[in-house]
Amino acid sequence: MNYCSHCGHALSMRIPDGDNRIRHCCDNCGTIHYANPKLVLGTLPYEGQRVLLCRRAIEPRHGFWTLPGGFMENGETLSEGALRETDEEAGARVEIGPLFSVLDVVHVHQVHVFYLARLLSLDFAPGPESLEVRMFAENEIPWDDIAFRTTAMTLRAFFDDLRQGTFMLHTGRVQPAHAPHAPHGPL
Amino acid sequence: MNYCSHCGHALSMRIPDGDNRIRHCCDNCGTIHYANPKLVLGTLPYEGQRVLLCRRAIEPRHGFWTLPGGFMENGETLSEGALRETDEEAGARVEIGPLFSVLDVVHVHQVHVFYLARLLSLDFAPGPESLEVRMFAENEIPWDDIAFRTTAMTLRAFFDDLRQGTFMLHTGRVQPAHAPHAPHGPL
Repeated sequence: MNYCSHCGHALSMRIPDGDNRIRHCCDNCGTIHYANPKLVLGTLPYEGQRVLLCRRAIEPRHGFWTLPGGFMENGETLSEGALRETDEEAGARVEIGPLFSVLDVVHVHQVHVFYLARLLSLDFAPGPESLEVRMFAENEIPWDDIAFRTTAMTLRAFFDDLRQGTFMLHTGRVQPAHAPHAPHGPL
Repeated sequence: MNYCSHCGHALSMRIPDGDNRIRHCCDNCGTIHYANPKLVLGTLPYEGQRVLLCRRAIEPRHGFWTLPGGFMENGETLSEGALRETDEEAGARVEIGPLFSVLDVVHVHQVHVFYLARLLSLDFAPGPESLEVRMFAENEIPWDDIAFRTTAMTLRAFFDDLRQGTFMLHTGRVQPAHAPHAPHGPL
């Protein structure tokens, strides 16, 4: 961020009056430009003991498998955004269920939120951002080819809960990939 | 948003290739500037059957009562942000508990998230953004002077759950103030 998006003047980095953090400040028009984490919304579409995954047709992680999801847009609720992404990426019709995982991904300034979503039909099809969409039982999940760690965490929680017979809300934090306890690759 | 924050060129509004929404696009450097909802984090600090509220020293809603909360910052988790706001606005030491409410406030592009938080001490004090901080039993809550509807919804859910003897996760959506079913004033 170099220029003021309001007036076009060059920005300076300083702590504004009454604040305690360095911000991008415009000394011309006075606008302070805050940067805040973004929400990534998705679903875990399932039928019985199988889940739906999409193989990504876009970067990052082209060719890797993921749950349908993407950035929340202005003008929608959390569940509307999750449903929109499920339709766009997998062409899947689901009945949205409860919040299932809420995961901090601090190093990329994101919070990932997944809803349980019961598939209403197995008549789905990849959208432009997916190469392929298919159902997986637990023993078929391509763990080494999962795109994001929040996907892997959410899938593991689902199959654990399925064995326990009750679905819970799962919260947690993804460590950076270079951290000692990062188990599943990037993001 | 009028100018590209990357290169300073005037922006145009159009649907980028491969997208389906109008975005702020820079025809000089190619940057697409996305606008996404922001997270507002807070706690519901309680001791026994009483909760802590802050009277706001800043706009919006100067002089009205609220739970401690504010915008999530880059570099923190949801619970770290909620704790930071609780310290900054109320000087309160709490033990953070489970996620308690997750509320869509679509018309202002926000998602409000509150954690249950057990007060570790009644030795608190207003920070620079608060005029006053005090404890309220349910029959003392100044319902007509609550700053935001997500505060009122979260407080009502807390006292309902307290009567039931079990705390649950509460999700929902705040309607715009001009909508027919808006019960509790602004935001």
